[in-house]
Amino acid sequence: MRAAPSNGRGAESDIDAPVRIGVVGLGYWGPNLVRNLQELPCAEVIAVCDQQADALRRIAGRYPALQTTTDFDDLLRDPTIEAVAIATPASSHFPLAAAALKAGKHVFVEKPLADSSKAARELIQLAEERERVLMPGHTFLYSPAVNLIRDLIQSGDLGEIYFISTSRVNLGLHQPDASVVWDLGPHDLSILLYWLEELPQQVSAMSRGCIIPDVPDVAFISLMYESGTIAHVELSWLAPSKLRRTAIVGSEKMVVYDDTSNEPVRIFDSGVMPRDPETFGEYQLTYRTGDIISPRLDVAEPIYREMEDFCASLRGASATRSSAQLGLQVVEIIEAIDRSIASGRSVDTLPRASSRR
Amino acid sequence: MRAAPSNGRGAESDIDAPVRIGVVGLGYWGPNLVRNLQELPCAEVIAVCDQQADALRRIAGRYPALQTTTDFDDLLRDPTIEAVAIATPASSHFPLAAAALKAGKHVFVEKPLADSSKAARELIQLAEERERVLMPGHTFLYSPAVNLIRDLIQSGDLGEIYFISTSRVNLGLHQPDASVVWDLGPHDLSILLYWLEELPQQVSAMSRGCIIPDVPDVAFISLMYESGTIAHVELSWLAPSKLRRTAIVGSEKMVVYDDTSNEPVRIFDSGVMPRDPETFGEYQLTYRTGDIISPRLDVAEPIYREMEDFCASLRGASATRSSAQLGLQVVEIIEAIDRSIASGRSVDTLPRASSRR
Amino acid sequence: MRAAPSNGRGAESDIDAPVRIGVVGLGYWGPNLVRNLQELPCAEVIAVCDQQADALRRIAGRYPALQTTTDFDDLLRDPTIEAVAIATPASSHFPLAAAALKAGKHVFVEKPLADSSKAARELIQLAEERERVLMPGHTFLYSPAVNLIRDLIQSGDLGEIYFISTSRVNLGLHQPDASVVWDLGPHDLSILLYWLEELPQQVSAMSRGCIIPDVPDVAFISLMYESGTIAHVELSWLAPSKLRRTAIVGSEKMVVYDDTSNEPVRIFDSGVMPRDPETFGEYQLTYRTGDIISPRLDVAEPIYREMEDFCASLRGASATRSSAQLGLQVVEIIEAIDRSIASGRSVDTLPRASSRR
Amino acid sequence: MRAAPSNGRGAESDIDAPVRIGVVGLGYWGPNLVRNLQELPCAEVIAVCDQQADALRRIAGRYPALQTTTDFDDLLRDPTIEAVAIATPASSHFPLAAAALKAGKHVFVEKPLADSSKAARELIQLAEERERVLMPGHTFLYSPAVNLIRDLIQSGDLGEIYFISTSRVNLGLHQPDASVVWDLGPHDLSILLYWLEELPQQVSAMSRGCIIPDVPDVAFISLMYESGTIAHVELSWLAPSKLRRTAIVGSEKMVVYDDTSNEPVRIFDSGVMPRDPETFGEYQLTYRTGDIISPRLDVAEPIYREMEDFCASLRGASATRSSAQLGLQVVEIIEAIDRSIASGRSVDTLPRASSRR
Repeated sequence: MRAAPSNGRGAESDIDAPVRIGVVGLGYWGPNLVRNLQELPCAEVIAVCDQQADALRRIAGRYPALQTTTDFDDLLRDPTIEAVAIATPASSHFPLAAAALKAGKHVFVEKPLADSSKAARELIQLAEERERVLMPGHTFLYSPAVNLIRDLIQSGDLGEIYFISTSRVNLGLHQPDASVVWDLGPHDLSILLYWLEELPQQVSAMSRGCIIPDVPDVAFISLMYESGTIAHVELSWLAPSKLRRTAIVGSEKMVVYDDTSNEPVRIFDSGVMPRDPETFGEYQLTYRTGDIISPRLDVAEPIYREMEDFCASLRGASATRSSAQLGLQVVEIIEAIDRSIASGRSVDTLPRASSRR
Repeated sequence: MRAAPSNGRGAESDIDAPVRIGVVGLGYWGPNLVRNLQELPCAEVIAVCDQQADALRRIAGRYPALQTTTDFDDLLRDPTIEAVAIATPASSHFPLAAAALKAGKHVFVEKPLADSSKAARELIQLAEERERVLMPGHTFLYSPAVNLIRDLIQSGDLGEIYFISTSRVNLGLHQPDASVVWDLGPHDLSILLYWLEELPQQVSAMSRGCIIPDVPDVAFISLMYESGTIAHVELSWLAPSKLRRTAIVGSEKMVVYDDTSNEPVRIFDSGVMPRDPETFGEYQLTYRTGDIISPRLDVAEPIYREMEDFCASLRGASATRSSAQLGLQVVEIIEAIDRSIASGRSVDTLPRASSRR
Repeated sequence: MRAAPSNGRGAESDIDAPVRIGVVGLGYWGPNLVRNLQELPCAEVIAVCDQQADALRRIAGRYPALQTTTDFDDLLRDPTIEAVAIATPASSHFPLAAAALKAGKHVFVEKPLADSSKAARELIQLAEERERVLMPGHTFLYSPAVNLIRDLIQSGDLGEIYFISTSRVNLGLHQPDASVVWDLGPHDLSILLYWLEELPQQVSAMSRGCIIPDVPDVAFISLMYESGTIAHVELSWLAPSKLRRTAIVGSEKMVVYDDTSNEPVRIFDSGVMPRDPETFGEYQLTYRTGDIISPRLDVAEPIYREMEDFCASLRGASATRSSAQLGLQVVEIIEAIDRSIASGRSVDTLPRASSRR
Repeated sequence: MRAAPSNGRGAESDIDAPVRIGVVGLGYWGPNLVRNLQELPCAEVIAVCDQQADALRRIAGRYPALQTTTDFDDLLRDPTIEAVAIATPASSHFPLAAAALKAGKHVFVEKPLADSSKAARELIQLAEERERVLMPGHTFLYSPAVNLIRDLIQSGDLGEIYFISTSRVNLGLHQPDASVVWDLGPHDLSILLYWLEELPQQVSAMSRGCIIPDVPDVAFISLMYESGTIAHVELSWLAPSKLRRTAIVGSEKMVVYDDTSNEPVRIFDSGVMPRDPETFGEYQLTYRTGDIISPRLDVAEPIYREMEDFCASLRGASATRSSAQLGLQVVEIIEAIDRSIASGRSVDTLPRASSRR
């Protein structure tokens, strides 16, 4: 029998015990979650839930000790389960996460945090009231490459960030109920928030549903920031070949981040300067191209670090890097993108409040 | 003594004689023009004009037979010069071309045709009145790769063109008096007009002057066409490495055009189809990836073919492929882009008339 | 109780029943074997054997139904086990395979078949006497890319094969008891035998043990064939980056096979011809470069097809594609390479017998 | 009237005056020589010689001030011509260079220095007797990339040089009278001599004349050095695509030199070490992969620097970097390669003398 909790977060169990987790959703991503959680010393998967009996059978074949159920409430009713990890389609994120929070569980939910900012805010409020951890799965925030670039930006090594241009395109997979903006967009939008620590003021977007009418499968998104930085995000499920290419252009250095390459980060010591500040008006410019460096990167799997952060947080460590607040901002930007697509014009990300975090 | 002209175009000289040409502007591009014209059997450079005595000396060292002058009127006054080729900064295109047309010369002018649509229209009218050839230098219309892709589009091999995404970025060279849109934009906009044979209805653009305030050196441009096709053009003078990459995504095949590659055109036999048209509503899609082909391309230098087209046209052949009308449309689109940048919203390319050519 | 066998091969069990297999060696490759065998309808892994208790525990965690043992004889003593798959270090291939054949088991053994041609021949004789299948694991013979190229060669599409040049280099992993020739060489040598269907007449090789004296970790190997074809194989465990590149130069076409690329096979319609056969003596040559094609390839995992071939063969189908005879030839070539390295000169692959297969 | 020479080298003319040069041979390379010499302040091309009147006309069109002749003796008879640059086929290098030296001219001769080591030695003796400069055109010794790598090797940054592997292949151009070894080989062999400062002790080579019997158009060459370093050179005029790739593997770092790349030199901070020197016998190795650096390189044209070195040397500066001695060693190695090809075995580069320079 457990001791009574002395405070909200993580108090109901031994601080050193592995976090007992139930996983719901065993489609593409769920089994990855289970595998990483099983490998983590700080976590233990107790039960898995999916509506497809087949999916349950497959996972049970690999992890015979797991309890399996098609009823999500079984997870909620189990008092030994402290946390729930949700890897279901986006439209079910809100009801499942809300139910779990209400049942006193900590919640990890795959991106996007919810399918509307209203729902995301409601989840955040629920988590605060119940003093539970609520963490969206913005996995790229745990990628060694993304973090190395964040360090370069935050340290000032790149100078002023002039602009960022990113392409995330490949052939498929179309989602029947979500646009490419809701499906792939959270990756780039969360990375931009993490790098720039600034919400875009304005967004402008164009898209087309080439294969399924009304479900955009290609989108071009422009983002303007108060600091002057601009960004562009190209997203598509229709492409001759896979691209994961981001160029970060700073006043001091430039970086290319390519997640498909053996050298995901390349730092270019290149730039442009007025030849003589005094004669700036005459636009005598000097172009500088120097060494190019591909720094060695850690090989840690981002999802492993992500789940480690989740467990540490609910055992009392600081807030998760991929925070519910950041998850909400991602959803707010996507809603602004949708408004821009619908109206054919630039829109403010937030109606009128300050965009600074 | 020449015979009286029996008709307007090219009649003032022997139909088989090389076209006698004066070239004005010996900066970056002018010497290329001179070299190609010298190699063309159908042309003969008589005189060159530049304000820099140095530039004249350099070209005279290489082609001692050329007359050199710092006075453009010398070219216009020479009755043996039939045509003038203008390779000066954009702001001087209109006054030089107008003067040459008024002097009865045929005119080739580097892109853009003029620095405003009003000026471009005035030049077109002048050329029609005087029955002279007026040709803007949209050189890519003579590139073997661009023409091979045009054939693939026009023949229907690619199917419906869903979208085109293009990046033309490199480090430098900033122009003191023209944005990257006016400098690099004419290349992609002329190619899109040549491929799609359709003027975009709407444009939406975002830009930034990173180095020189008020002179955009990076721009992201979205184009919407009545046919449903969408296009995106990324232009920049600030980039870690040179990119010349265009993806053309059709319903039947996809193409990547990369002008920096040994294999500039790659055709991907890839696509997406509803698995069963009857159950389309269920979005069962099939992804098809087939062979990739890099077709062999002619190695002809585009500028050589371009000048050949110019000479043939003023000797009585059909209109030039790079037509003054297309040159005007390029300028109209750029003006719309500038309006979109200034207003922060999508704008119609042409105020209200039909956009179909 | 089983019926008496009516013939040697595969007769002791139902022709449709899955082949009951024991796997010995759970290092790097063994677990791959187990996973593929488990997925194959025609096979069933009954027991696994390794000297490391840890390795047994790990595999039992994933496949709880497996019997585990540290004693290889347990596998041989189990009358329900029909076949043994050996994935142990090369020096143990002979004793384990010989014992298994003597116990009446069919044998699959990872490459090389044995660590000497004498031992390989003894295994072949044992298998023939006992009418058991003996199959070496030359996995590349089941690679879609390797087979597509074989078809191009066999059909004559490439014309006469002038030469083949291949590089298989990467950083590590050094084997303490085997040179890079014995470790990586079997891949290229088996592919060359499969493509050319010809044993090289002569080999000439140079090597160096850079890290561990007397254990070559880089080798350059030249092979000469009676047909006139020549081949070169570069092998190394010391390399700045991984290369898996093979160029096949034929009189009609050329092929590049790169196993690390998204497009592993590229067919170049290139060649050289005397301009006029009559004036051949004057060496007027024409160089032809045409289209380049990257054919789509099946995505089947080679090891899966390899084990399928093994099972089919011992159930009565024809001999395995990766045959014991080919495995012996690979070992004979490696021994010739070792003789060439030791003597510093070219050596005959086979002392004096015909080299034609 | 000139002053009497006070010493042998370059004394017959003003030390500051441009070197007056005659160029013989206007095929592929000769016009490059003329262009670079014309741009050099320290040189002046006086006359050009070729047997083809066409070639003379073309060069005269570009440089009207040049004297042209089909008679080489005209160059030798002109007392104002101090130096002769020879860019004719290899078989004429010796007679032309010998005649020029005998006429008291300084001599620059394209690689190879001569078509036999006997002839090369005779030229060296003539030059010494007449106190004239004799310089072979090993242009790569003036390449910024080659020099950067030499600095890395000489400084010890790469550690011990384990091995060097290089591929120089492309489609064509076959020479009617010279093998690919004589045509392309001098590039890699001169680079290896310049980097390693060591003559290989032994060479072993295999080749084939695929298109023209008895004229090898593909060759695989192994080189062994007294220091322990080994090297391999692949040369071919038959290849699906152009390769210019050299891997230099040192005990501390590794380098890839690719002359076709935008980043010709890439330095890999990678290596292998015994994990613990004490337990070396147990072969516990550690593999280290660190940053990769592409250093910025000067853009100077190697041929320009090469001719500058020639002029400086005959005006009294030190010996040329590309020395006649190095040119002789290149020819000696090629002769050893030919002996190895003919005999089918490894041969000593120099019969029995020391191979150390």
